[in-house]
Order: sequence, then structure tokens, then C-alpha cells
Amino acid sequence: MVVKVGLLGLGTVGTGTARILLDPLERHPLIQTVAIARVGVRSLDKPRQVTLPDEILTTDLDSIVTDESIQIVVELIGGLEPARSLILKAIAQGKHVVTANKAVIARYGDEIFTAANAAGVYVMLEAAVGGGIPVIQPLKQALGVNRIHAVTGIVNGTTNYILTRMQQEGGDFEPILADAQRLGYAEADPTADVDGLDGADKIAILASLAFGGRIKLSEVYCEGIRRVTAADIAYANRLGFVIKLLAIARRDVCPISNQHLDQLQVRVHPTLVPQGHPLASVNDVFNAILVEGDPIGQVMFFGPGAGSGPTASAVVSDILNVAATLHSNQGPTSVSTAPNPLLACIHQHYCQISPMATIVSRFYVRLLAKDAPGVIGKLGTCFGRHRVSLESVVQIGLQEDCAEIVIVSHEVKEADFQAALTEIGGYGEIKSVASVLRVL
Amino acid sequence: MVVKVGLLGLGTVGTGTARILLDPLERHPLIQTVAIARVGVRSLDKPRQVTLPDEILTTDLDSIVTDESIQIVVELIGGLEPARSLILKAIAQGKHVVTANKAVIARYGDEIFTAANAAGVYVMLEAAVGGGIPVIQPLKQALGVNRIHAVTGIVNGTTNYILTRMQQEGGDFEPILADAQRLGYAEADPTADVDGLDGADKIAILASLAFGGRIKLSEVYCEGIRRVTAADIAYANRLGFVIKLLAIARRDVCPISNQHLDQLQVRVHPTLVPQGHPLASVNDVFNAILVEGDPIGQVMFFGPGAGSGPTASAVVSDILNVAATLHSNQGPTSVSTAPNPLLACIHQHYCQISPMATIVSRFYVRLLAKDAPGVIGKLGTCFGRHRVSLESVVQIGLQEDCAEIVIVSHEVKEADFQAALTEIGGYGEIKSVASVLRVL
Repeated sequence: MVVKVGLLGLGTVGTGTARILLDPLERHPLIQTVAIARVGVRSLDKPRQVTLPDEILTTDLDSIVTDESIQIVVELIGGLEPARSLILKAIAQGKHVVTANKAVIARYGDEIFTAANAAGVYVMLEAAVGGGIPVIQPLKQALGVNRIHAVTGIVNGTTNYILTRMQQEGGDFEPILADAQRLGYAEADPTADVDGLDGADKIAILASLAFGGRIKLSEVYCEGIRRVTAADIAYANRLGFVIKLLAIARRDVCPISNQHLDQLQVRVHPTLVPQGHPLASVNDVFNAILVEGDPIGQVMFFGPGAGSGPTASAVVSDILNVAATLHSNQGPTSVSTAPNPLLACIHQHYCQISPMATIVSRFYVRLLAKDAPGVIGKLGTCFGRHRVSLESVVQIGLQEDCAEIVIVSHEVKEADFQAALTEIGGYGEIKSVASVLRVL
Repeated sequence: MVVKVGLLGLGTVGTGTARILLDPLERHPLIQTVAIARVGVRSLDKPRQVTLPDEILTTDLDSIVTDESIQIVVELIGGLEPARSLILKAIAQGKHVVTANKAVIARYGDEIFTAANAAGVYVMLEAAVGGGIPVIQPLKQALGVNRIHAVTGIVNGTTNYILTRMQQEGGDFEPILADAQRLGYAEADPTADVDGLDGADKIAILASLAFGGRIKLSEVYCEGIRRVTAADIAYANRLGFVIKLLAIARRDVCPISNQHLDQLQVRVHPTLVPQGHPLASVNDVFNAILVEGDPIGQVMFFGPGAGSGPTASAVVSDILNVAATLHSNQGPTSVSTAPNPLLACIHQHYCQISPMATIVSRFYVRLLAKDAPGVIGKLGTCFGRHRVSLESVVQIGLQEDCAEIVIVSHEVKEADFQAALTEIGGYGEIKSVASVLRVL
């Protein structure tokens, strides 16, 4: 049996996908049963880095998702529309879907998986998070037997590249972003990456798989790296931390019983990570996802988070997974078989997300204050009144006639901390609250 | 449909497995369709850490593998016999098998998978390598679309714990082994761990999956950590390396074309790993497996390599994988379906393994020599005559009237290097060749 695949898009990932499928030697033999039947492109004239017969290329993407001979539609055009409509149309036609599109899944996963479950087809998305790193499949299969407590990831290569360079060179954000854009590590419009939106899409997807419920993207707290400075990175380093943009999804823990609760925290923000932590040494464009659960403890997946080859590897692995079920369900007579419950999306309810104000975490703050006696005492008193217990208050140096004060708190409720900070920001002695970062 | 499971063994991993299956809340809902039908134990009277009905316990393990109601046999007794015979009998009875037994798979995988393929059943072994780390399944599925070049792992927790402590404390092997035994990190008979035999079993299994062919265990080169000294760890550190027991499987590379060849190198030995390498920071009892391939690049899997909970997580994930195919193959009429080609073992041939003498690698040597003029020149001349190019020769210090000389070579053929070393060992000026280690 040959499984016929229709590719929507022949850009970076599409080209990588076609390359693997056209060159099956020394790969899993099942690839040889997969054929590219049609490829949808924007323009037929564009030069290609992969050789495909002219007659399978088309600019009519609709004709691919409605093609009766095609069993798997591979959506690699990205963006929201027409990706969403094409995916839904493919599902309606009874086709399995493989996609690398985190934006469309994070926003329309609800609609898409409801449709897929009704049609009895699979929607596979290994390539949507972590590029080539197998993390979706392990979360669905190998790790699903665990009670997951937390998923913590460095899931955006661009920001990790920028933060790594800021750390290694002691440089500030803007010039390194500009250089990253010049080198092709950051887009001309870097918003989705540096403001954490890409990370939010990805952690919404990971949280959904890890905790078995849907996630409203609007409830994911999201803060980017624009305000991280070279000074903060240097101070963090002195305190034994590196600064990483983390995407975090974790079950809340009851402060009294220490038990894991049903509500989740789902958030993306720059974070001080202890230098010995497995995520601290993940540098450059690499991604890593740390999963914690019971009884497995900690497992981490590390690898290239983007790029043509790695992402195509994930896309083709999804194609093979679907092809394998098509092969193994092929009995002597044609029967309707149930979808594999480890490949299908099985949850329909929404997870309850805790508002940020209720979340408990440690904080790092850098303040510029007038170099007057009694400032530290006044700060300590204010934090204390707001039930914020401090681990350290250090006056690091002087900058423009101001004392630079770095404060690290113990675990405190976000609302209490922010209330204290608002009050402190109003003090005459405080010139500015230069940075506020959370500590892992 | 309820899937009935028979457990062989209720030791550490068996207990962990039963605990997950008996407590399905907040785990994958499919667990609720899996029932423990029988449990085979050595003695009925032993106190248990898990509560099971008395009537499902039996000392008659044969009665479990022949029980008609059981669909999946989970072999957790370890060792070669009766594990091998029970697995084969279960297969002959048409039962799927889940095992955590690397020793039996590495030695009898040939016989077991041939029987399983003939019977159309699955033999699953996620727990056999890397404890809880999902690595078998990604190699079979997500990474199988790649042309794998190398699999390099820290796959033995005991030796990694010993080497980590030797490095952190500057201590020697024997006292730290004794302490590890006292603390339960090493067995009373530590041979399988410290001599690398456990690592050899595991890399044979990983190589087989990564390169799609069977591996003869007798062809796996195996060297343990007994001869690693505190001095070597300290010198390695000065040179920018840490010493790790690595299990390595890689395709040979043609020295002229730089192309990957069909022959494999499969070997376990202590290795100098550059400090910036992803495996260098894997410490204590943690395991990690680095997979390199085309087009994915490098991916690494990190986590707990042993222990009741993590290993049980892997065992239950295999049970769920089989249960999922049983569920999804259940059509309206009973049909014989083909096994899923991503779960079944698909290769029958043996991989060709290169003899160690032909392998190219870098070496680290520590020599004790009489402190006489001209020794370094004589060493350099001898290595040169044997086509061994050196990167550095450093006389580090004096020990018992002898000069301690540390040599690091460039990439050289093992046979050339060993021939030079044999000649050097015979020199009157050389008191001893204290250590020979390979460099990654």
C-alpha cells in the first residue's frame, strides 16, 4: 500500500520534508511507502531547492485538500489563514493532517481537534514545538502514564540566541537583536519571538498535552526579553543564575498540604535560572524541554528548535506515524477501526488557569535609589508590610549618582509583591524600578 | 475493552508498575482499561509495598504466560533464565511482551524478535535502556526518518555516580565504589556496572534500533572504569575535559570521502569528553543519550536512568502503547491486522562491526618515566614512526622519582597507537604506562 501525501507549502520546512521523502535510503523503510502526490505552492515559477515533477505542483491549495487520492495533508504554509481553513477542509474530507503550525493550533486547536475527533482522523503536530526534538510524541505516549507536575522549556531559539550572546559578550539587547537580524537568527519583525508570543503558543500546546485539557491562549501570561539588560545578566551571574526566557506550565501547589492542585500556571517570561539547573546550559538557538512528573522525576529533551532539517524530521515522523496506523489497520476486509488513543487528542474540557496575581514565585528586582541613609530599611519595611520576605538586599554600586540596589525575595505571592513594588516606586528616594524578573 | 496484563516479578520495578496501574487518576485515561490479571512472584509470604488481591499472586510463572485471558506479559524478573524461556513461551502463546531486561534482549534479541515477528506480537523494551527516559520509542518512531550517524550515551547510573564523585572529591575509584555500595548506588557485586557490561548490553540495543540491524554482543568492545584514577580526572580537567563512561555506536566514516560507511563502531569505554559537550554536565546517577543524524543534527535525552518509579513509567508506557494498538485495531468484526511497523522489530540482518584495531580516535596517555633527558624526544620519535600524530606532550610533575608525562594524540588508528604504546612500554626509561583513555 502506498500512502499519498499532499504538501501545502514548499518553503524551508516543506523543502526539507520533500528531501527526506525523496531520499529514503538508510532511513525507516516505511518512508518508501509514502509518496508525495501533490504540492501546493504560491508560485509555479520560483526556483526550488528540491526536484519534483512539474505536474504535481499546483497553486490551487483547495484542490489538494479535496483530492480523493490523498490520505495525509501536510500543512506547512504557516500563519492563521488560509492554514486554518485548509486544515478544517482536509479534516472534513476525512484526511489526516500533519502540521508544523503552532500559531494555528494554539489559537484554533479547539475547533480543529473537535472536527478531527468527529471525523476520526489524526492531527499531528510534533514540528510545532521544539523543531526536531521529539517532545509532543513522548508527552502523548511515553510520559502520559505520569502525573505531570510541570513542563518548563526554552522553546524559542531566537531569544535564547540573543540572551546567550548578551551573557557571553556582556552586551545589551538592542545591538545584539540587530546583529541577530543581520545574521538571520531573528526576523525583520522580531515581535513574535522577542515579546514571547511564539513561546506562549508553544507552552499552550505543551500544557494541553501534559495536563490533558485545552488551554485558552488569552490566559497565558506573556512577557518578552526586551527589558532584560546587560546589567541584570551580570548581577544574576554574581548571584549564581543565568537569565533565560522560560515557558512554564505547572500545576499549582497548595501552600498548606503541598499537594498538586487542578489549576495550572501557564506563563512565559525571562527568568533567573540557577547555574546548575539542566536548562541553564542550553545555549544559542538550541531548545530544551524539561518535564517533571510522578513517578518519573525529571526528564529533559534537548536539540535544535528550528531549521529546515530538524523541523522536517519532526514532520516526516508524524507522517510515518499516521502511515503506520494506516498500514496496520489494513485488514483483509475493509473495516472502520477506532483511532489510536495515544495519537488522537482525547480531551475536550478547558484547564483552569490561575491568574498571575495568585501565583507564588521568587523575584529579582533592581532599583535605582538616591544614595541616602535609611533607604534599605525603608524598602525592607515596605516589603515586610506586604508579606514579602526577602532573601537578600545588596547595594551593588553607583550609577548616575544613584545607588543600584538588587533585591532577591523568597517565595511570595505575586499580588503582594506587585503591591509592595507599586508603593516603593512612589518613594521620593527611588529614581526607578529598573528591572523585575522572576526566579525559578 | 479491558486489556489484561500478567506481571512476572514484583520487585522494585514490578512494584512501581503495579502502583501506576492501580492508581490511574490524573494519568492517561487509557490506563483505566488495563487490568493486572496475574502477578508471578518468588514467594507468596513476602511483605509487599503494594496492595494486590491474594488470589492474583502466584509462584507459578508458567501459568501466567499460558493464561488465555492475558494479552500482555510484562517480564520484570531480570537475568537470563527463566526470563528468556518465559518470554519465548509468552510469544508462542500469541501474547505481547513488555520487558525491562536489557541482558536478555542484548543476548537473545535475535531469537526473541524472530519469534515475535512470526507470531505477530510486539516485544517492547523502553525500560531496558535509560530507565524512565523515553529513548527507545523516539529511536523507533520520531528519529527513524533520519539517517543516524551516532548514538552516544551515559547509560549506566552507577558508574556515572562514581565518576562524578571522583571528580567532585578528587577521590580514587576503590573507596568511592565502597561508599557507593554502602549507599545502595552500587551492587555488592559491581562487575556488570563498573566493567561496562551493562553499558555494552544497552548500546547493543540502542545501536540495533538506530542503525536498523542486529548486533552481536560479543563484537561490542567493552572497558570499564576500574583503572580511571583521581590523577587522570585532574589532568583531564586541566586539559578541558571530564571523564565519562560512554557507550558509543557510530557509523564509520571513510577517511578519504568523509562519507558515512555501512560498518559500525560499537564500544563502551571511559572517555575524555570536552567540558562544553552536552554529555559533560550529566552527573550523578542521571543518564543521557545523544543522537546525531541527518537532517536532525543533535538531540539529547536526559533523565533518571534507573529507580522504581522512572523504570515503571517506561514499562507502563510500553503497556499503553500495546493496549492502544489493541484498542484501535478492534473493528466491528474481528480481523487479523498487520502489526504496526513503528512498534515491531523490522530488521533481521546483522550489522557489520569494525574491529577496534581499525577505529580512528584521539588518545590520552599518562606515562611514568625516569627523569632523564631525551625521553620526550624518544617518545615523539616512536609515535611518529607509527604514524601517530601528537597534539600535546606535557611533563606534569614528579611522582616517586619519576616524571609524569601526559600525551594527547590527534585522531589516529587504534592499531598504530597500540603498536607505538607496546614499543614505548618496553623502553628502559618508561616505568609504566599508567593510563590510556580515548578522547571524544
